[in-house]
Amino acid sequence: MPRFRLIVEYDGAPFVGWQRQENGPSVQGALEDAVERFCGERVTAVAAGRTDAGVHARAMTVHVDLERSVEPGVLRDAVNHHLKPLPVAALSATRADEGFHARFSATARAYEYLIVARRAPLALSAGRAWRLPGPIDVEAMARAGAALIGKHDFTTFRAAQCQAASPVKTLSELKVTAMDDRVRIFARAPSFLHHQVRSIAGSLVEVGLGRWAPERVAAALAARERRVCGRVAPAEGLYFLWAEYEGADASGAKDRAAHADDEGRGDDADED
Amino acid sequence: MPRFRLIVEYDGAPFVGWQRQENGPSVQGALEDAVERFCGERVTAVAAGRTDAGVHARAMTVHVDLERSVEPGVLRDAVNHHLKPLPVAALSATRADEGFHARFSATARAYEYLIVARRAPLALSAGRAWRLPGPIDVEAMARAGAALIGKHDFTTFRAAQCQAASPVKTLSELKVTAMDDRVRIFARAPSFLHHQVRSIAGSLVEVGLGRWAPERVAAALAARERRVCGRVAPAEGLYFLWAEYEGADASGAKDRAAHADDEGRGDDADED
Repeated sequence: MPRFRLIVEYDGAPFVGWQRQENGPSVQGALEDAVERFCGERVTAVAAGRTDAGVHARAMTVHVDLERSVEPGVLRDAVNHHLKPLPVAALSATRADEGFHARFSATARAYEYLIVARRAPLALSAGRAWRLPGPIDVEAMARAGAALIGKHDFTTFRAAQCQAASPVKTLSELKVTAMDDRVRIFARAPSFLHHQVRSIAGSLVEVGLGRWAPERVAAALAARERRVCGRVAPAEGLYFLWAEYEGADASGAKDRAAHADDEGRGDDADED
Repeated sequence: MPRFRLIVEYDGAPFVGWQRQENGPSVQGALEDAVERFCGERVTAVAAGRTDAGVHARAMTVHVDLERSVEPGVLRDAVNHHLKPLPVAALSATRADEGFHARFSATARAYEYLIVARRAPLALSAGRAWRLPGPIDVEAMARAGAALIGKHDFTTFRAAQCQAASPVKTLSELKVTAMDDRVRIFARAPSFLHHQVRSIAGSLVEVGLGRWAPERVAAALAARERRVCGRVAPAEGLYFLWAEYEGADASGAKDRAAHADDEGRGDDADED
């Protein structure tokens, strides 16, 4: 049974999240329905990260298995045709190795959290960023965030409903940068806990607004207590950027999301 | 009567354009209504550029006159409050000199036309760019565009309904740049003709797609005939970036739009 790998972009706003649920439209459901409308096959779409309601994706890796063999370009175009008018698009489709698994083969995931620091409401970026009436001390946020890099028990930055077996994760990268009134938090790790990026973003924002001293973030991490976390940053500012894979499957996704904004829901192999 | 200068961002999608019209909601109407809801005064909002239906603005300069004196920050916040939930926001409000006129005092206007060159539909940028199935030869577009810089008779790149007294305009800057699959056409001039930026963008796209040799753009300009223009690029890719003013009024707007995407309707002091 041929396995296909799709790189998918979506606006999370109209969805209950990646995962198919009873209570509303999901990105997974939209993709599975589009495949079915194309070829009549009922598939299960598996994603690198199961993003939460409202979380966006620049280049989510997804795999599906089809009974029949189909030209990958035809699959991509057909899925896009049947996804209309939903804000979900397959940027590419390729044949995947038999052993490839969008979720379990991923060696790293990257997210971005976008903040716009200004007093005025968002017009062109409405629903695409967390607006905070500035000013924000980006230097202090970067300093505070540096303490989170590495292997730690992230209990503080983990949703109560997180199903991961262990709260210990390795945060490979965490960068806070700013351009004009846009502040971006970039996070990359082999995997994330549920709400990890949004919990970190919310705590860093406390620092950026001067409510927390930068050292408090390291102290919060060390406390390993959920109640000392800052507020969880809203979903609309989070973007799943890309997933990374070993070897031949290490193509496309990363490059396609290089200039982006995003996050999601995670259990063991997911994120915020 | 105190005059106020507002810097306004808007998503053009839900509007018939800047100008108040019988056939639907306008940005001008939205702003005038917001001011009236705030202070009961019926004002006329004057903009640097009267953008067409669907055209966005990053930092449009607008002026309004109020009977009463009000703190500019209070005006900005009140207007934003009353604009909700429309995608229009006042980024700033300042007192303007008596002689200041958002349209007639402007010494230059800048627009950006955003193209996304990819096969897949737009999810996160839907309604914010012109998608063209790539590849696009950006080098050829830049070369072709260079022929348009300077003072010329732009009859070819002017809408039939353009009301400007003369088709002669000075295009101060025209730049075509690309990052990944995003192609940006930046245009700056003292003033633009109606549909000028979109007509230029559409013709440059013909070059980018290899349908026109680059030299054909210069030939089209020299022909001074509307019928030799390429197709007019769709409104959704055009962004009014900023307007420029002399002296003390040369503040804010330009900086606020420095990283942007946008275009509009013009007569003598307008654009595309």
